[in-house]
Amino acid sequence: MRRAAPLLPIALALALGGPAMSDDAPLSPAESDPDRMGWMEGFPPPEDKVITGADPSFNDFPKLRWTVCHYRELQPTVAVRDGAGAARDLERAIDPAVGEVRFTPWGAEAPMTFDEAFDANYTDGLMVLHRGRVVYERYAGCLDEEGARARGIHGAMSVTKSVTGLLAEMLIAEGALDETAAVTDLIPELEGSAYDGATVRDVLDMRTALDYSEDYADPDAEIWAYAQAIDGLPAPEGYDGPRGAYAYLPTLTAAGAPGGAFDYQTPNADVAGWLVQRAAGEPLEELLSQRVWAPLGATREGYYIVDSLGIASAGGGFNAALEDMARLGQLMLDGGMAGGTRIVPAEAVERIAGGGDRAAFEQSHYDDLEGWSYRSLWWHTDTDAYAARGVHGQTIYVDPDAEMVIVRFASHPVAANSANDPTSLPAYAAVADYLRTKDAD
Amino acid sequence: MRRAAPLLPIALALALGGPAMSDDAPLSPAESDPDRMGWMEGFPPPEDKVITGADPSFNDFPKLRWTVCHYRELQPTVAVRDGAGAARDLERAIDPAVGEVRFTPWGAEAPMTFDEAFDANYTDGLMVLHRGRVVYERYAGCLDEEGARARGIHGAMSVTKSVTGLLAEMLIAEGALDETAAVTDLIPELEGSAYDGATVRDVLDMRTALDYSEDYADPDAEIWAYAQAIDGLPAPEGYDGPRGAYAYLPTLTAAGAPGGAFDYQTPNADVAGWLVQRAAGEPLEELLSQRVWAPLGATREGYYIVDSLGIASAGGGFNAALEDMARLGQLMLDGGMAGGTRIVPAEAVERIAGGGDRAAFEQSHYDDLEGWSYRSLWWHTDTDAYAARGVHGQTIYVDPDAEMVIVRFASHPVAANSANDPTSLPAYAAVADYLRTKDAD
Repeated sequence: MRRAAPLLPIALALALGGPAMSDDAPLSPAESDPDRMGWMEGFPPPEDKVITGADPSFNDFPKLRWTVCHYRELQPTVAVRDGAGAARDLERAIDPAVGEVRFTPWGAEAPMTFDEAFDANYTDGLMVLHRGRVVYERYAGCLDEEGARARGIHGAMSVTKSVTGLLAEMLIAEGALDETAAVTDLIPELEGSAYDGATVRDVLDMRTALDYSEDYADPDAEIWAYAQAIDGLPAPEGYDGPRGAYAYLPTLTAAGAPGGAFDYQTPNADVAGWLVQRAAGEPLEELLSQRVWAPLGATREGYYIVDSLGIASAGGGFNAALEDMARLGQLMLDGGMAGGTRIVPAEAVERIAGGGDRAAFEQSHYDDLEGWSYRSLWWHTDTDAYAARGVHGQTIYVDPDAEMVIVRFASHPVAANSANDPTSLPAYAAVADYLRTKDAD
Repeated sequence: MRRAAPLLPIALALALGGPAMSDDAPLSPAESDPDRMGWMEGFPPPEDKVITGADPSFNDFPKLRWTVCHYRELQPTVAVRDGAGAARDLERAIDPAVGEVRFTPWGAEAPMTFDEAFDANYTDGLMVLHRGRVVYERYAGCLDEEGARARGIHGAMSVTKSVTGLLAEMLIAEGALDETAAVTDLIPELEGSAYDGATVRDVLDMRTALDYSEDYADPDAEIWAYAQAIDGLPAPEGYDGPRGAYAYLPTLTAAGAPGGAFDYQTPNADVAGWLVQRAAGEPLEELLSQRVWAPLGATREGYYIVDSLGIASAGGGFNAALEDMARLGQLMLDGGMAGGTRIVPAEAVERIAGGGDRAAFEQSHYDDLEGWSYRSLWWHTDTDAYAARGVHGQTIYVDPDAEMVIVRFASHPVAANSANDPTSLPAYAAVADYLRTKDAD
């Protein structure tokens, strides 16, 4: 069984209406540039240039290239506040050589430069940090606008999951959440569901054996009921299904016993968010703001897409500025320290950085990701880097050995990261090599 | 003809479902405190404590007392960015005597203190500034929370109109907008509507003689079609009316010739927003951010509620932090200067501060507001103060003679300001007197 890597923004899955790709080659990055397409320009925009939450095509490519910077204009959201004026500078030390770094994409013969990969991946914004300083920075698409760039807000898609995982590990390190506890001890509402017998750790590591499909090509896949349940917009007339993530999750059934194979299923991230909220007694957005976003010196408010009960989407609803995602990546690289202050317990970072059970991961048949693992809603590579990954190319990639952090926002026509990994993962490795060599000079 | 003062947040008018008040006395400020009511608390909140955009009661009192701090969680919105880390301090010089200032409410015999008026008006946040320093500051309701208070976001309701008016006056002062121009020269879409023959100035001063009713008690009032048209949530099944403010406005017809009586009608503020956007070639949220919110040193992003075409509601959709509204009021008092920098042309402030045509205002029969006038979407009092006013008690009140600015967010059970003016306007005058006397000491 082969499946898509990090899921599309879950709160929007319904709106996707299935895979948006046709057999034709998609528009190129330049052709699909939202400015060139003219989406939502004018007062009012012409009818054929309107993108609205009422029309479920908003997440289809090429509209997607506009939408990724504008989710709040389409859906209800909740703020993740920054420290209001306490932003910490992100030091730039741009090295033009990074863009010229060459690598060979998976399955290709001809090499490609890092700059060429930027375009090939429909990248909207990309930063490489080395030892905490920005050595490469480039913008396109909806982030290539005055006032946007490093500070433009963009959907993080399933990178959201890793943010949830980080909060969970923080609570675990502080003793506020017990990773060995039964999920149903904290969330009795899940008794009788697939989460019977699962531990907090099983959920964080996505080893819960849900009978659940995220196959967008299958109209009977559970993803559709899930997406409708968590949609923050008013439900269609006649809808009588579950309302909100926390009404849907108890309906999930098991396909096996928890604690076995890794199986990437978004509802686990929502259960993780539920656990975090129950353990902390705070909404996710407050927790993230108070514990991370404000102390980190984020420059801008981020936000979560919310369901119709106001619950932040812990699986795919986070949106933030690239610069602030870079701060988050650097916080991880620095073992939980930022600006001389401890923000995250060292133990929480170590557990994430250490990766998960490789055998459990192997059973999920991500053939391109040999030697990887998954822990606490983060991906761990075969080279001891670790990453937050979201559909269409969103990533925070932390390579401790190269003292490198890469953050990327993108709007690739194909949701699954298997479409951009061939021109991304070897590129990251090549830049890491370059930076290590540079160190040696 | 007597009508409600500043209109309820237009994007939400439909949701109000008519006047929310019954014949019973409403819950007291303490009884209706959103924390005490328990709205939206818990993961998930219990069913009878849910407030959601899908249920049109969200703007009814007492839910209103929660909703005013949470519009973005219910509806699509767009950010009005601050200067990201460039916030200017708002100096505090709290004077405990301000709360003890006594006044006699209109129509009452017994005097009341300024502190008592705070409660009587269901105030959520109130600041009095004297010579640029905060001398009184108090919070309740949804603003009385850690992290909220001065920096909590709250709906500004029709104070939004005055923000639009300020932007219009800035463009006029710069020669980018001609106040004598025909509206239809800039917006040909309005040809054949009530705006035929109206000038930019007529619109800004609400002298357009629309055949339009905002009487919420009348199910045939035009406000309902308007509210549905500008609602940012997906329209109900079967709706085939205009989509977005700019599709609705051309349908308005005239009840007379423009340039006559003042008539407070929200669509004029939307036309003003349309004019501003056409003249500047920028969306309202960008213009406000670049021209005012960022240079002003606002501490937080504000936002606008948007319609289904992404157009910011220029008549009632702005939300911001009280502290930033105070900065805006102080900017006006200081003739357009802030932090030693000119942000607004002096002429633009002077025109607003100078007030409008009293005879035109008198024809509108606001009997309690004798000697007032209206200009550029701002109210001008009989004591040469001027104010932005929104339903349920929102205000920016600038008294140049007393060098005083008052900003207030509230969630009064009654929308019309006629319900809170008796315990507000004489209170403001009394505090102004106190501050003037203090000066003389």
